[in-house]
Amino acid sequence: MKSLTDYLWFNTSKEHDILNITGEAERLVKKSGVKEGFCLVSAMHITAGIWVNDEEPGLKQDLFEWLEKLAPKGNYRHHHTGESNGDAHLKRTLVHHQAILPITDGKLDLGPWEQVFYVEFDGRRKKRVVVKIIGE
Amino acid sequence: MKSLTDYLWFNTSKEHDILNITGEAERLVKKSGVKEGFCLVSAMHITAGIWVNDEEPGLKQDLFEWLEKLAPKGNYRHHHTGESNGDAHLKRTLVHHQAILPITDGKLDLGPWEQVFYVEFDGRRKKRVVVKIIGE
Amino acid sequence: MKSLTDYLWFNTSKEHDILNITGEAERLVKKSGVKEGFCLVSAMHITAGIWVNDEEPGLKQDLFEWLEKLAPKGNYRHHHTGESNGDAHLKRTLVHHQAILPITDGKLDLGPWEQVFYVEFDGRRKKRVVVKIIGE
Repeated sequence: MKSLTDYLWFNTSKEHDILNITGEAERLVKKSGVKEGFCLVSAMHITAGIWVNDEEPGLKQDLFEWLEKLAPKGNYRHHHTGESNGDAHLKRTLVHHQAILPITDGKLDLGPWEQVFYVEFDGRRKKRVVVKIIGE
Repeated sequence: MKSLTDYLWFNTSKEHDILNITGEAERLVKKSGVKEGFCLVSAMHITAGIWVNDEEPGLKQDLFEWLEKLAPKGNYRHHHTGESNGDAHLKRTLVHHQAILPITDGKLDLGPWEQVFYVEFDGRRKKRVVVKIIGE
Repeated sequence: MKSLTDYLWFNTSKEHDILNITGEAERLVKKSGVKEGFCLVSAMHITAGIWVNDEEPGLKQDLFEWLEKLAPKGNYRHHHTGESNGDAHLKRTLVHHQAILPITDGKLDLGPWEQVFYVEFDGRRKKRVVVKIIGE
């Protein structure tokens, strides 16, 4: 069994942002030498998620507007700690914080429109995604 | 390490549909010869998801009615591209697009009521699910 | 390849509950002897989920209050079967029923605040989580 672990760091200039990390994941798969296996991409900070969907600017804006309706900024009990990002924890929950990308014949085995995104809900600070590949 | 990759194709007659694919996954696990490992089931098209829940007709209808409330058909920015399925991208996000099924002693290690469903939100065209098994 | 499979049993005294199972997962990773791999934690009963987020009492209460808004108790078609837990099936869907925890250098490779929770939406009966570890 082969494995590779790496970390992608992000420090977005905006509070909310979405970054296409498909190329980064592909680069690490190639580096790993794994031909058949799984590539886990998981946001390590609890106010960010991973989204596998379409690289289309309108849809990406739809995502944030829709999440704002379902998990709006507001008064959360979490804010008694001095934090103000309760909504970001819930937005991460809806998007989910990770995805497994299958690796087949040495490449990401994604659908024709599937792209992998890091979705930030509380940016302007350093945050990390773990990419872990196992296989053969 | 052993691995097996296969693709399930769907072309539902309805826009919204839900198909129990537990048997298909079990068949592929058997074919793989893997006794201990993981079976990834992942919808490759970005308007469909994978749901692990109960094979109960009422609940399956509840799922669609509830998703329609949380991610209704409507006017999305995505529709400026000529598409009309913005809601389907968001419904996929809520259901999540994939699940990992554990394999123990050569069988899917599911709970007593867990069944695996392909959930279609924009059907009437050919779509694919990747099933990828790794283990030993 | 090494593997380990174990099951955690829960019987919460309350209908809704949230239990930090990070230590249990860590213990099993150590027991497995796996240095590089994946640890799947998956709720086997369809009215419970797995949540990876912050160990902060206010936020945990926020989670339940927010889920009650998005997937409220109510009249579901599922209740025609005699059940009354339709909302719990939908809450599990939002939280998602599983997470993959990366294992690096023999330890859970989680972010600084990431903790792993079993989230119960229909307790007061025996329920199970499967923990499955594969790697080397």
